[in-house]
Amino acid sequence: MIPGRFITLEGGEGAGKSTQARLLADALRADGLDVLLTREPGGTTGAEAIRQLLLSNDGDGWHAEAEALLFAAARSDHVARAIRPALAAGTWVVCDRFIDSNRAYQGGAGGLADGDIQALHGFGTGGLLPDLTLLIAVSPETATARLAQRDGDKADRIGARGAAYHAGVAASFARLADQEPGRIVTVDGEGSAQDIHQRVLQVLRAHLAFRA
Amino acid sequence: MIPGRFITLEGGEGAGKSTQARLLADALRADGLDVLLTREPGGTTGAEAIRQLLLSNDGDGWHAEAEALLFAAARSDHVARAIRPALAAGTWVVCDRFIDSNRAYQGGAGGLADGDIQALHGFGTGGLLPDLTLLIAVSPETATARLAQRDGDKADRIGARGAAYHAGVAASFARLADQEPGRIVTVDGEGSAQDIHQRVLQVLRAHLAFRA
Repeated sequence: MIPGRFITLEGGEGAGKSTQARLLADALRADGLDVLLTREPGGTTGAEAIRQLLLSNDGDGWHAEAEALLFAAARSDHVARAIRPALAAGTWVVCDRFIDSNRAYQGGAGGLADGDIQALHGFGTGGLLPDLTLLIAVSPETATARLAQRDGDKADRIGARGAAYHAGVAASFARLADQEPGRIVTVDGEGSAQDIHQRVLQVLRAHLAFRA
Repeated sequence: MIPGRFITLEGGEGAGKSTQARLLADALRADGLDVLLTREPGGTTGAEAIRQLLLSNDGDGWHAEAEALLFAAARSDHVARAIRPALAAGTWVVCDRFIDSNRAYQGGAGGLADGDIQALHGFGTGGLLPDLTLLIAVSPETATARLAQRDGDKADRIGARGAAYHAGVAASFARLADQEPGRIVTVDGEGSAQDIHQRVLQVLRAHLAFRA
């Protein structure tokens, strides 16, 4: 059995990650591959329950350390019960957000040390990293315009943080892409969903060996 | 302002920790002290929500790493929002279970490395340790008899684990007490609640400077 490939999509709010994850999963399926399309935080029953605690606007919110521990707990369950079994069975996994979101949000923008976030990830998942991470980069104006188009889909507790926080997130993502060019590839997220999708496929072909 | 003292009660299921925590808090209050009586996992709105995820018998349960991360997240919230503010205000804190339960349950009995559990605790709380930990030790027969007396209070997901797991928990607690005799004191948990309470007060007087 050839293990599946693990592809993550990253970026700030309104970058179009979820749309691109869906289009990518469809394209891989059309190519004859088994695909698990999933997201973080979430992706398993337990991790989706933790997602509720993290993102709902009820309650008192979480300080940075508790938030990072909850993300790590959700990912631990998601990796052990969904991602690793899928990859072992030859299924490709397309995941909307993964460890790099924690490094950019709770780390770069939230002030936690990157080494601490990676240590939690190592403990919870054995340090699983994607084969390829697509960082969808858009201008703040494009992100704001896309968020405005989401009917009745209010910002969650983290998305609702201020402009300075989100600028810090974008700067952190860019820094991660500079540090790990072999894994993280920045994709221009401006233009139509189909335009961006074509760019995603181009990156994928360049970086991963497709099955015939 | 003289900071409050931080006292935890530890032990297996049915040791009588919650009863002794209540009696101790009452005795300290009768002595004129401000007391916060609390428990883990829980003690704040957020941590009680995590407690539900950890202990309810719904869902698929958690593997060891995810369980340890959830405990650490709950404690991070509890320490930051309840325990540290109380201690800083001069309030004594009596807590039913704390870090040593994780070391005995997820560590000794569950197979996780003690160093990893302590690293999570360091990240989540800055490594806060109690001034005094009372380990209530009972025979398996006494624990079973006390659990049988709990009307309609069914075992939670962790309490319901098998006899071998709970024997591992007891052995781990005993080892921790051997390793840290300056902080962890074993109290004979056999006999009536009042008998045990008198032993607890004796240990407390010997180990902590009471206010006049």
